[in-house]
Amino acid sequence: MSETANIRENSVGIVEKKYYTFAEAPDKLVLESGSQLGPVTIAYETYGTLNKQKDNCILLAHAFSGDSHAAGFYPTDNEGDKPGWWDFLVGPGKGIDTNLYFVVCPNILGSCMGSTGPGSINPETGKPYGLSFPMMTIGDMVVTQKALIDHLGITGLLAVIGGSVGGMQVLEWCVRFPKMVRAAVPIATTMRHSALAIAFNEIARQSIMADPNWAKGNYYAGEKPNMGLSVARMVGHVTYLSDVAMRRKFGRKLQDKDHFSFDFDGDFQVESYLRHQGSKFVSRFDANSVLYITKAADYFDVVDQMGKQGLTDGNNRKKIKYLVVSFSSDWLYPTYQAKELVQTLKRCGQNVSFCEIEADCGHDAFLVPDQRFTTLIRGFLDGIS
Amino acid sequence: MSETANIRENSVGIVEKKYYTFAEAPDKLVLESGSQLGPVTIAYETYGTLNKQKDNCILLAHAFSGDSHAAGFYPTDNEGDKPGWWDFLVGPGKGIDTNLYFVVCPNILGSCMGSTGPGSINPETGKPYGLSFPMMTIGDMVVTQKALIDHLGITGLLAVIGGSVGGMQVLEWCVRFPKMVRAAVPIATTMRHSALAIAFNEIARQSIMADPNWAKGNYYAGEKPNMGLSVARMVGHVTYLSDVAMRRKFGRKLQDKDHFSFDFDGDFQVESYLRHQGSKFVSRFDANSVLYITKAADYFDVVDQMGKQGLTDGNNRKKIKYLVVSFSSDWLYPTYQAKELVQTLKRCGQNVSFCEIEADCGHDAFLVPDQRFTTLIRGFLDGIS
Repeated sequence: MSETANIRENSVGIVEKKYYTFAEAPDKLVLESGSQLGPVTIAYETYGTLNKQKDNCILLAHAFSGDSHAAGFYPTDNEGDKPGWWDFLVGPGKGIDTNLYFVVCPNILGSCMGSTGPGSINPETGKPYGLSFPMMTIGDMVVTQKALIDHLGITGLLAVIGGSVGGMQVLEWCVRFPKMVRAAVPIATTMRHSALAIAFNEIARQSIMADPNWAKGNYYAGEKPNMGLSVARMVGHVTYLSDVAMRRKFGRKLQDKDHFSFDFDGDFQVESYLRHQGSKFVSRFDANSVLYITKAADYFDVVDQMGKQGLTDGNNRKKIKYLVVSFSSDWLYPTYQAKELVQTLKRCGQNVSFCEIEADCGHDAFLVPDQRFTTLIRGFLDGIS
Repeated sequence: MSETANIRENSVGIVEKKYYTFAEAPDKLVLESGSQLGPVTIAYETYGTLNKQKDNCILLAHAFSGDSHAAGFYPTDNEGDKPGWWDFLVGPGKGIDTNLYFVVCPNILGSCMGSTGPGSINPETGKPYGLSFPMMTIGDMVVTQKALIDHLGITGLLAVIGGSVGGMQVLEWCVRFPKMVRAAVPIATTMRHSALAIAFNEIARQSIMADPNWAKGNYYAGEKPNMGLSVARMVGHVTYLSDVAMRRKFGRKLQDKDHFSFDFDGDFQVESYLRHQGSKFVSRFDANSVLYITKAADYFDVVDQMGKQGLTDGNNRKKIKYLVVSFSSDWLYPTYQAKELVQTLKRCGQNVSFCEIEADCGHDAFLVPDQRFTTLIRGFLDGIS
């Protein structure tokens, strides 16, 4: 059996992207900023089967530029097409075992992968929102996920699991809807966005807004701010890697030649790689969504809420079981920030496990197949009583 | 006495930018790429007095966006204007004591601070070079510095000292003109540019070249690529800082308000700071110079030369005394890269001292007044016999 066939065989199979629309006027969603938004559509996928007790649901929260396609294949995929972004972890017999669990993965609010975002049509104008899309927070994303879970008739989540911006959503779930969450797995994330992380996001935004085609967000009918978006992605991409990983993967290897070009076309493989990442991203992602989602991440700060709200009344309600995971070479959300989260949770009397996985591939490690990571998640889920 | 008056009192006083022009046709300079360039002007400043033996000259090599103004004040400076970039280290009685040493600081080739660069007039066309300026290397910069030192009638340098891209020039001096160098102080630098460092430089270049005003480098008569250059500087600036320094300096402090704006004008102080750094840079630096100098840094790799050439024949000629300095929070040229340099030098039988200074302000630490750093440099210079 070929490797591709093997991947397909062990996957959740053919999946379908579904949509749930709510918050129609006059019952629009009131966002954290006070702005109103509606209708709101959330794209999502599900894998596995909801049991009769409806208590085996795991919600996956994807990262900044992710989507609802966490596992499996689409009917339109060709031989050799890649499965969903967490296919190594989510499937029958895998770390998040779809023979046991009903897994729901919603696309985040503000994205461009099926859920309502700045590129969606504003029903009041018949045109894309652009910058008239209201600013939103990680909390707002979670509120829309809660609406989806309600819609699915599920009253409690066995676990909420996510990495990076997905990990922020996990923590917001615990702060906003603690009674609905039995276990939480925040991975490669932070309780509050650091100055360094804000700085890189601001550079990405400035790069997009510096592109004349951005046109204050009103570019949907014309040329798109592809150059600015490409540079923004290159910046982001470097923050997802590590010095060690880049040395190992690229070092100073030259691209298709054995001597310096002495021009600006790019000599080193790392340059071509970054340019490729930039142009690939441009073809799949909306620049305005980058602006809104990075801003939501920058606003993210649940330090106070985790100390004050929900988590301190440990005696009055069931505790949430936490598994906090960090990766040793992640310099965007370094291990010391994961440890701060662990300490905060422990001070609140929460049930918390912590694991730093030695991995040299930087922040993106949570998206890289790793048996230790898979075993860790499986073991934690097995132990939720 | 006011602090400003005190700084002036303890400085080298009023200094003058000088120029040396050479390599007139037909004796143009042949660069490492094989291209020819000429005439070449090198702007430079000197502090202190050359002794009769002409053996007290120290050459300072500045970093990427630096200039020849290492210390003192210009006649046009107003009360409160800042002195040269290394004024805390260079002056009477300071770490590099101008009562003892004759200090020369040339502006690097390819820059826009007085030396010939892409913004200079090409005598053959009467217009700025733009991208017709030949690609150059750190070695080419050093060759022009050697021409300047020859011109000054100096046959040997007591020391060559520089940080970052300046440290690369120090190492090139040792490789190309080892007999002229008695001591070398490479600071916060590397023997070869890493994939991570190349990646950030490539992002800076892409940002500039993405600006339509860049016009393939031919912008001198019109609008300049200020937006692209500003984003490029923001990227560079973040790599010069550190996570800890940014947490301490900015954290999540808001700019002039106590609540989120929920718009894209910038909420956090770190955002305003970066934007300010970007626009400040635009007013003083040429975008094409960024392209050429970053490329020279990316090409930089003296690992082989340091092993093979010049440094291995320790028995046949006087050794160079090295002081290698790194800073603990520098993640652009981390301490492990300084240690690789030290090991290479030791394998070649060189006389090498090494110091990692604990400092949390990142790569830029070598530009920040620090008594330990000053004492270290002074002690090393005292000990050159």
